[in-house]
Amino acid sequence: MATRHPLTMTTLNPNIKKMAYAVRGPVVTRACEIEDELRKGLKKPFDAVVKADIGDAHAMGQTPITFIRQVLALVNYPPLLNEPLFPADAKQRARAILGACKAGSVGAYTESAGIELIRRHVADYIERRDGIPSDWRNIVLTTGGSEAIRSVLRLLLSGAGDDPVGVMVPVPMFPLYSVTLTEYGMHRVDYYPDEDNDWALDVSELERAAREARKICALRAIVVINPGNPTGQVLTRGNIEEIIRFAHREKLFVLADEVYQQNVYGDGVPFVSFKKALSGMPCRDDVQIASFMSCSKGYAGECGARGGYVELINVSSEVMAEYLKSVVVNMCPAVSGQACLEAIVNPPAAGEPSFESYREEKARVLASLELKARMVTDALSSVEGFSCNSIRGAMYAFPRLRLPPKAAEAAAERGLEPDTFYAFRLLEETGLCVVPGNNFGQKPGTYHFRMTILPSPGDLHAMLRRLASFHAEFMRTYS
Amino acid sequence: MATRHPLTMTTLNPNIKKMAYAVRGPVVTRACEIEDELRKGLKKPFDAVVKADIGDAHAMGQTPITFIRQVLALVNYPPLLNEPLFPADAKQRARAILGACKAGSVGAYTESAGIELIRRHVADYIERRDGIPSDWRNIVLTTGGSEAIRSVLRLLLSGAGDDPVGVMVPVPMFPLYSVTLTEYGMHRVDYYPDEDNDWALDVSELERAAREARKICALRAIVVINPGNPTGQVLTRGNIEEIIRFAHREKLFVLADEVYQQNVYGDGVPFVSFKKALSGMPCRDDVQIASFMSCSKGYAGECGARGGYVELINVSSEVMAEYLKSVVVNMCPAVSGQACLEAIVNPPAAGEPSFESYREEKARVLASLELKARMVTDALSSVEGFSCNSIRGAMYAFPRLRLPPKAAEAAAERGLEPDTFYAFRLLEETGLCVVPGNNFGQKPGTYHFRMTILPSPGDLHAMLRRLASFHAEFMRTYS
Repeated sequence: MATRHPLTMTTLNPNIKKMAYAVRGPVVTRACEIEDELRKGLKKPFDAVVKADIGDAHAMGQTPITFIRQVLALVNYPPLLNEPLFPADAKQRARAILGACKAGSVGAYTESAGIELIRRHVADYIERRDGIPSDWRNIVLTTGGSEAIRSVLRLLLSGAGDDPVGVMVPVPMFPLYSVTLTEYGMHRVDYYPDEDNDWALDVSELERAAREARKICALRAIVVINPGNPTGQVLTRGNIEEIIRFAHREKLFVLADEVYQQNVYGDGVPFVSFKKALSGMPCRDDVQIASFMSCSKGYAGECGARGGYVELINVSSEVMAEYLKSVVVNMCPAVSGQACLEAIVNPPAAGEPSFESYREEKARVLASLELKARMVTDALSSVEGFSCNSIRGAMYAFPRLRLPPKAAEAAAERGLEPDTFYAFRLLEETGLCVVPGNNFGQKPGTYHFRMTILPSPGDLHAMLRRLASFHAEFMRTYS
Repeated sequence: MATRHPLTMTTLNPNIKKMAYAVRGPVVTRACEIEDELRKGLKKPFDAVVKADIGDAHAMGQTPITFIRQVLALVNYPPLLNEPLFPADAKQRARAILGACKAGSVGAYTESAGIELIRRHVADYIERRDGIPSDWRNIVLTTGGSEAIRSVLRLLLSGAGDDPVGVMVPVPMFPLYSVTLTEYGMHRVDYYPDEDNDWALDVSELERAAREARKICALRAIVVINPGNPTGQVLTRGNIEEIIRFAHREKLFVLADEVYQQNVYGDGVPFVSFKKALSGMPCRDDVQIASFMSCSKGYAGECGARGGYVELINVSSEVMAEYLKSVVVNMCPAVSGQACLEAIVNPPAAGEPSFESYREEKARVLASLELKARMVTDALSSVEGFSCNSIRGAMYAFPRLRLPPKAAEAAAERGLEPDTFYAFRLLEETGLCVVPGNNFGQKPGTYHFRMTILPSPGDLHAMLRRLASFHAEFMRTYS
């Protein structure tokens, strides 16, 4: 085959070959196979696989917010505007969206940056969030948060023959960053948030990473994920200010991944956006930030809609024009995602007919996530051999495992990382699917896994018990 | 500003600076300004701008197919499944889609390659179209056809330090190709379909282009757009076979842009897919093809849904696995686009309740496009100084203009290409917005413009009359 075809494993884009996409890695693949085996009647020590591997709220049973879905149904099928089935506020939003679409159809292309009305409402949402102005012309709607992140990283690429551009990324990190840097041929510069200090960012560690990176690449940007994925931390305003001062000194573009801004739990640290922190600092005009948001997280959890936005701060109008030019290649963001975003940033207001039910549904989702964040934190902290920071935000736990040398040897015999070996054993013996820490990156010699807090409290309870007894047995076997 | 910011016009990705996106170029920008001026009450020699610049059917008043929108409303808001408002077949499709979504919600991520059920139905559609087998595992659903095209071109990129990869593209072409090749740093290898022979592809011209390209790049692929955009041709099976033999000899990957496969008019040349043509040839196992399709064109015209697919032919399972890995970066295609595609490839069948109305709506759209294709062909052919091939497919006319030297001089004084100057004058004097031929590429020394056939017959009629009298006046001025 190889010789007669132009596209083979030999000629394939080498950067694609290097890409490893960790969120859907081999453990998840095996989990899907086990689900098939269960369907075929194979006997297992469990009845069902519990997928705690991905932040996919609806897949884990979270119900959609009614108002959002009403708006989506109405814009897709406008004859429903005449039906008494739907409340007036959902109809109002749908009419406004349709009025902003060409010839009143969501089937028309929108502007490449998204519908102006929705960009304006995103700016209003940001102003309410931060208490400072937001200019809708700096906001670009995208087909999901991932596309937004990739489109901004693309702006930073260097030309052929120039030094490779370096981007600082937290380790552990959401794997989209590592895989995109690999695809783009950018230099990945790891920095390590301090696990022993609730994953805070220590400026001396940022400086170490930057110093080493400058020897081998043109360092240009830093990614910060807040609230943290997979780490679940929420950065304090003081810590954010330190990071901004560091970025200012080092002249780095800041990619602020703030897609979990609505997922903050307890009465601990509140979410503060990088933009808001910057606004109070002397360097307020000098640091460039891209802040990312998504429909997939928060209380909506609408992953399938593929809605997201980026707000660019302190980027010149000339560069903004180039950015807008570059996003035209996708024609326009999916209109479903844009409409979903509109329903999120412009929800029912007090006095509107859906207000009470919307508020109640939203509160129920957030209360459930908060309860589960506490359940998981408590359960994992009480297992001997685990340590786990409190889950203050996002939707994941990232506990650290202290694995005995024999477990590492058993893993090595199978050609696996110790925590991958652990995750495979956990899956085979309990049906619980988590993602090994090495898929997100971790400090050398440390082992972790990421699990979501999304299963129902009942499932989560059973799962955490199975995990504790599996762990005890695993430690007995390999001690 | 420049010195204190990391992202400036100086540091911006140079390939993005080089990108020029032609479908939405300066003439379209000016058309939008004129619309604003009209709204503000400025006097113009016309009442409204007619946008004949982009293949955006709904924007030009084409109504959506009811069945498609019913399915979309139902999947977004499943309580509607209990309402008598909707026919049983739309409900059946919606239930099937929801049944294939995790936990029955379109808000969950789907597989990165799209929902298996829909991939299977796409394969069924292709089998019905071609009469030969299609394997659903070779089909990947995408967020629109553009994403599909870009994701396949990405597979062909070479590594740093290797020879740049060359891709043959027709001139004129859909500008997505030129802009993506620029962004990816690939080498664009122009070939010229024969305007004097209904835009047929002459193999000696392909060979010329390939021979010249091989001196300066690693030639790896050829793009063919059939039915043609902007040229409106439909290639004969014999011509397609010649192109395939050429690709085989030269070992080129074939990107078959077949998004207009449902837009073929008259009783002239029928649409034959590259896959079908290949299936009858001795090299049937040796030529690799990617065939692209979209929800945005055809009779659906659902541009905003962002649905599309690619079928890969003769690509090894190893390379397919790499491709699937590479598309994970976008998490999953927009589910609205996937559901829209399902309604297109699995429409109401004879005996189902929506069958008659669906067939009638589809026939009405296609008959209207056919009528308008003929109207435009006839009108443009009768203007002195224009020549225009028959519009046999797609939704565009691409007439050739014979412009006098004085017009070229007047254009040069303004720093414009002659056909850009013409398009600007046409816009300012008649309100008719078309895209200059140079945005698509054209043989040196020839001038064209692209106009869509999408305005209503009434608008089109008025528009073609205004165009004819504008042209006569323009020729008088510059002769």
